[in-house]
Formats: sequence, C-alpha cells, structure tokens
Amino acid sequence: MAKQLGGAGLRGQVAGKTALSTVGVSGSGLTYRGYDIKDLAENCEFEEVAHLILKGKLPNQQELSTYKNKLRSLRGLPQALKDVLERIPKQAHPMDVLRTGCSMLGNLETENSFDEQEETADRMLACFPSIICYWYRFSHNGERINVDTDDDSIGSHFLHLLHGEKPRELHEKVMHVSLILYAEHEFNASTFTARVCASTLSDMHSCITGAIGSLRGPLHGGANEAAMDMIEDFTSAEQAEQEMMAKLARKDKIMGFGHAIYSESDPRNAIIKHWSKKLSEDVGDTVLYAVSERCEEVMWREKKLFCNADFFHASAYNFMGIPTKLFTPIFVMSRLTGWAAHVMEQRADNRIIRPSAEYVGEQPRAVTPISERS
Amino acid sequence: MAKQLGGAGLRGQVAGKTALSTVGVSGSGLTYRGYDIKDLAENCEFEEVAHLILKGKLPNQQELSTYKNKLRSLRGLPQALKDVLERIPKQAHPMDVLRTGCSMLGNLETENSFDEQEETADRMLACFPSIICYWYRFSHNGERINVDTDDDSIGSHFLHLLHGEKPRELHEKVMHVSLILYAEHEFNASTFTARVCASTLSDMHSCITGAIGSLRGPLHGGANEAAMDMIEDFTSAEQAEQEMMAKLARKDKIMGFGHAIYSESDPRNAIIKHWSKKLSEDVGDTVLYAVSERCEEVMWREKKLFCNADFFHASAYNFMGIPTKLFTPIFVMSRLTGWAAHVMEQRADNRIIRPSAEYVGEQPRAVTPISERS
Ligand SMILES: CC(C)(COP(=O)(O)OP(=O)(O)OC[C@H]1O[C@@H](n2cnc3c(N)ncnc32)[C@H](O)[C@@H]1OP(=O)(O)O)[C@@H](O)C(=O)NCCC(=O)NCCS
Ligand SMILES: CC(C)(COP(=O)(O)OP(=O)(O)OC[C@H]1O[C@@H](n2cnc3c(N)ncnc32)[C@H](O)[C@@H]1OP(=O)(O)O)[C@@H](O)C(=O)NCCC(=O)NCCS
Repeated sequence: MAKQLGGAGLRGQVAGKTALSTVGVSGSGLTYRGYDIKDLAENCEFEEVAHLILKGKLPNQQELSTYKNKLRSLRGLPQALKDVLERIPKQAHPMDVLRTGCSMLGNLETENSFDEQEETADRMLACFPSIICYWYRFSHNGERINVDTDDDSIGSHFLHLLHGEKPRELHEKVMHVSLILYAEHEFNASTFTARVCASTLSDMHSCITGAIGSLRGPLHGGANEAAMDMIEDFTSAEQAEQEMMAKLARKDKIMGFGHAIYSESDPRNAIIKHWSKKLSEDVGDTVLYAVSERCEEVMWREKKLFCNADFFHASAYNFMGIPTKLFTPIFVMSRLTGWAAHVMEQRADNRIIRPSAEYVGEQPRAVTPISERS
Repeated sequence: MAKQLGGAGLRGQVAGKTALSTVGVSGSGLTYRGYDIKDLAENCEFEEVAHLILKGKLPNQQELSTYKNKLRSLRGLPQALKDVLERIPKQAHPMDVLRTGCSMLGNLETENSFDEQEETADRMLACFPSIICYWYRFSHNGERINVDTDDDSIGSHFLHLLHGEKPRELHEKVMHVSLILYAEHEFNASTFTARVCASTLSDMHSCITGAIGSLRGPLHGGANEAAMDMIEDFTSAEQAEQEMMAKLARKDKIMGFGHAIYSESDPRNAIIKHWSKKLSEDVGDTVLYAVSERCEEVMWREKKLFCNADFFHASAYNFMGIPTKLFTPIFVMSRLTGWAAHVMEQRADNRIIRPSAEYVGEQPRAVTPISERS
C-alpha cells in the first residue's frame, strides 16, 4: 500500500521513530497506536482518540468523563488574547489567526518546563475552537461571544460558537468522525515541522505555531479549502467531468487528490465519503455530492489518482454550513493531538534535527571592494 | 572539517539543494554564495550581505544606498501590531514576542502571492528591530517609542531604539560583524523548519514564524543566552575553571560549545572573539572576557569541544549593554535573511518535505467497547 520513493522531499527516508501511528503499512492502512482508523471512527468519540494519542490509552468511562470535564473547563480566553483577536481584520486568513492566537497564548501561558507539556496540550485542545470562533464572530458580525459553553464535545463546542446554537446530533457525530480522521498522520509536513522545532528543545507553543503555518499550505491542509473552491463552481456532474478533463489537459494540480505515501487509496476517504453522502441526503442536495463523486471517478479513470482525506471533507463541511475558510482550522483543532504527541515523543529521545544540503552554488571567490563592483 | 555522521537527527543526510552557503566543506569553513565569512565580516556592512543572500549579488555603491534607503523607509509599525505588542507582558520571552509579532504582521500585510516574497522579506528585515524594541521599551519602561528613525543601518537602528540614543561607531561596527556572522548557515534546524513549511507552499510569514520558534530552543539560537547566564556567574578565570570542571564531571551540556557539522572549530568564533576582546578593552572589563577565554581553554583541553558562534557573542553583547534576553532576537534579525532566501529557493524547485518514520509502537489491535476497558 505504501509507495517506494526516494530523493526529493526526503520521501521514503527515515527521519526518526514513532509509536503513534502507521501510514500505508500493508494490511493496515492507517492505525493510531495500533487501532485501525475505521474501528476508531465507528466506535469512538474524538475525545477518546485524543486521550489515546496524548495519554497512550483509550480511556474507560470514568477517565473519559474526567477528561471531557477538564477540557470543558479550559475553554475560556484571557482578555489580552481577545484584544489581539479583535485587532485581526476580517480579510485575514483564519489559519493566520490561529497561528497568531497560539503564539500569543504562548506569551500569556508559557510552557515553563517540559513537565507542563500535557497540560499545555490539553489547554490548546480546549481553547482553539474558542480562538477561531471568537475572531470569526467578532470580525464578521461585530459580536463578542461568550466562548465558555457547556457543550459535551470539542466538535459541538465549535459548531455552537460558530452558529450561535447547539448543533444537531448528526452534525455532532460527523464532527467526531472528522476530528478522528484528521488527528494523526505520522511524519507529514506539519508534524515534521513540530518535531524539528521540538528537537531544539523549544517550547510547545513554538512547535504548534510552526505546525499551523505548515498546515496552511495548499499542498497540505489547505487542500480541503482548495477542493471546495473547485467543486462549488460546478453545477452538475456533467460539467464537472468536462472541467476536470480540461484541468487535466492543462496539467493543473487538483487539490484533494494524491498522497505522498498512499499509492492506491487513502483509508480516510471511504469514511468521510460515507458521511458526506448522509449529510447530502439530509440537506436534500442534488448537486455537490454528485459533482464530488464524478470528480473522483474522472481522476481515477484518467490518472489513477484517488481522493485523499481532504476531498469529501469539503462537501461534508459545506453541508454543515461551515464557511470554506474555516475548513483548515478544523483540521488544526484535531491534528493538534498528533502534533503535541509527536513533540512529547521527540523530547523523550532527542537529537537536534539538522540535515545536510547538496551545494549547487558559486565556487569560492573574493570580495571585491564596493567601488569596483559592477 | 565536516564530521562524518549519520542516523538520528538526519545528520549527514541530504535533504535538498542549496546555492546559499557551504558549512564545513574542507578548505572553506563557511561561505555565503562563495564568499568566505572572514572576508565578508572584514569588508562588508550587514546590508551588503543581506543583499547578497536575498538578491544574489554584492551590491555596488548605488545599489547599496538604494537598498538601505528602502529598508529605512520600512521601519514603521501598524497601530494594530503596536496594540498587540502592548498586550504582551514584561515576563514574556522576547523570542515569543517576535514570533507573535511576525505572525500578527502576516495578518496585516499578508503575502498574497509569491511575487511578493522579496518585498515581504525586506519588510521584515526592516521592522523586526522595531517590533522587539517597541515591546521591550513599552513593557519595561512604559514608553511608546517612535520606531521610525533615520539610522544608517539595521544594527544601529536596533541599538538606538533599545538605548534611546545613537550608538557609538565601535558598537555599530560590531553589530555589522555580528549580523553578518549569524546571517546564514545552510540546513540548520530553524532554516530547515522554514523550508519544510515552504514546501507545503505556505506563506512567508508562516515560514519565518516557524523558524523563530525553532531558533528559540536552547540547543540552537537560545545557546547565546544560556552561555551568558553561565559566564556571568563566574567572578574569575580560576573560579570558571573549577566550575567548568565540575559541570563536565556532572556531564552537563555546556551551551555555546560543540556543533552538529563542524568538528574542530567554528569559523565564526575567531571573528566574534576578536571583537569581544576589543569591546572588553573598551569598557575596561577585567573579568568577563578572561572568564570566557578560560572556559574555551578548559572545554578544548578536557573534551576537544570548541566554541561555536554563540559563545563569545554572549560577552560581546553584554559589553554593548544589551540585556541577555534580547540576544536571540538579534540572531533573528540577521538569520531572517538566510531563512527568507531558503524559502525562495525551496519554492523555486519544490516537492513537499515528507519523510518517513520507523514504527516502534503497538501491533494491530481492536477497539474494546468503552464499558469493558480497564
Ligand atoms: C499530496 C501531494 C503533495 C503528494 O506529493 P508527491 O509525493 O510529491 O506526489 P507524487 O510523487 O505522488 O506525484 C506523482 C505525480 O503525480 C502528479 N500528481 C500528484 N498529485 C496530483 C494531483 N492532485 N493532481 C494532479 N497531478 C498530481 C504529480 O504532479 C507527479 O507528476 P510529475 O512526476 O509529472 O511531477 C500531491 O499529491 C498533491 O499535491 N496533491 C494535491 C494537494 C493535496 O490534496 N494535498 C493534501 C494531501 S493529504
Ligand atoms: C550543537 C549541538 C546541538 C550539536 O549536537 P550533535 O550533533 O547531536 O552533537 P554531537 O554528535 O557532536 O555530540 C557528540 C557528543 O558530545 C557531547 N557534546 C556535544 N556538545 C556538547 C556540549 N556543548 N557540552 C557537553 N557535551 C557536548 C554530546 O552530548 C555527545 O555525547 P554523547 O555521544 O555521549 O551523547 C550540541 O553540540 C550542543 O547541544 N551544544 C550546546 C548547545 C549550543 O551551543 N548550540 C548552538 C549551536 S550553534
């Protein structure tokens, strides 16, 4: 299931050890600490998976409710952080807002020693939905919302803050699934960013801030937004087919397809596709899901390229009324668990990550006095 | 001169190509685009080196003054950024302040396309001293300083804002040397962070914000501050010798010594050591320089460990009246040139940086229903 690769982008090169997940190992598409992603998405809440990733075990009922209560108690934002968010303009990219919010939090609640790493991670997990929604509602509607709600889960907290009302059960369920699917993915670019940062023994907020910046890129987390921008332009499956063929002829890169490690399918796709279909039926959609399915068919038929986790997330989030520009921030709320766990793992057995480069520049030369330079 | 290494931390593994510098290539300790660091430090201003790194050539007189004028015009800070800085407490680490300031700038002056990359880099180069000093003077003295000065260079702008008066010639010269020495260093951890982020095609502010977070770590840029904390405790060379021996016996890691690539010496050390000595004589110091030299002797005699760029920077900055916690931010003001140039280089020939991991975790297992978990 995994591609054999080498060369550019460190593809196929081992950059360290992990006990957190396997990606593309034959026979098991994606596992978190040994559990198959399908099993987790079917049988767990996101908070159980966060507990698994951050604390090493699936919680029992008592542990889960203690953990959820704890996370619930950590949703509030300090005034200085709200002040900062109020100064970020409406036009800003929400990923830049989260990056700045996380960095600011590091000034107000600095991780002073590695003993605080779990607390720091839990705090971020609890308050990132508050950060993004506080900014969104203030910049877009001029409202100063109360972020301290009693919602049961991180996903429902987010939807509640965003829409101003408690979410329906179906939406809460889809948020659990979505956050589970995005939680952890071995040495992807944003996680690797966090590990490189951790390897200098820097603090947790620096590591996570850096990872957010990497996830923002369109080749990485930004792909779900780019996929949405594409599919919402198509008014029918037929039109989608034509436009996709034209894009392929122009050799455009199609966001939401392909993967650095998986070669034939992304195990997360079937799961989110299933829920996208359910949501499509729920809202009575006749276009977006059909368009998405057609894109999938064309890409496979023409290029043997398959949907990655991002593609059907686009329509699923859209059916839940989530603005496109908040798609990648949801990815952050989830992947935070993987990032923080990787930081802890790196710290536990660290050597500074410092590769070499192949030099392709000028040969040695002497500085010419400035008056003689051309 | 370069170590043969492998294994952990990607040491000795080629992660990409660069035309920007060579580190530890035999016969030429450190070169920027082919020019030896010694030659540059003796004959150039920092702005010439920034021009070399960012724009590919040493400027002639006309180009240099155009470039310096441009940088001078970009020193001001938007009000929203000042508001943010005013909300960061005095106890915050200045590296967290810079990380947040850079990230906030990305919300206010977003790099909307890669066509803007050079402008974005120049803007940061011009205004980072403003960011750090505005925060420092406000949080420590309650002053809202005017950051828009007419100082000739980045180094003098920084010293002027920090001390509230134009710096002496000797100090301006040392700032040029120091900023030149720190400007670029191939695939060190912070630069590599920036490149991993760039490889997702994220924006410049994300890349630089991430790099600042990595440089903050005590194994990387944070070492100059840690070195200062150590040497200022020693009241004489004799005491330094005793304490160093005790540290070595305890197997403490001594900050400011050793290097991931250089094996016998760091070519930057002799240069900054020379200027530290000059500054020591200038202020009539009889302790700190002697203490530093003794540390160097002991480490070499006992462990064949040599001073890296950070060690004599500690005393040099201290002689210029710079508070210890601002040492690493100066490193940022300089290394920014290397980071930005690496981001541009990565973008010009990109593949997403996504290594693999060796899995050392649990074997496949099934999710147990929550009621049955221990
Ligand atoms: C994920 C991705 C970055 C992996 O990069 P990678 O490991 O370098 O990709 P591969 O080695 O598999 O690429 C093989 C070929 O397929 C092409 N290809 C890969 N994904 C493609 C896509 N989505 N659309 C069009 N062509 C694609 C590549 O351009 C490459 O062609 P080339 O050799 O002529 O340059 C890449 O597939 C991509 O850019 N996808 C779109 C962005 C996306 O959805 N990202 C989210 C990932 S979860
Ligand atoms: C720079 C540094 C991170 C390089 O890391 P590295 O490539 O993993 O280091 P090496 O492989 O050369 O280390 C070899 C041995 O020397 C030891 N060593 C290296 N630097 C040391 C130091 N400054 N003090 C004490 N021991 C040191 C290491 O612990 C290692 O011993 P071990 O094999 O018993 O663990 C490391 O030298 C260090 O931590 N230095 C102090 C921090 C510093 O000054 N950083 C700024 C760098 S510009």
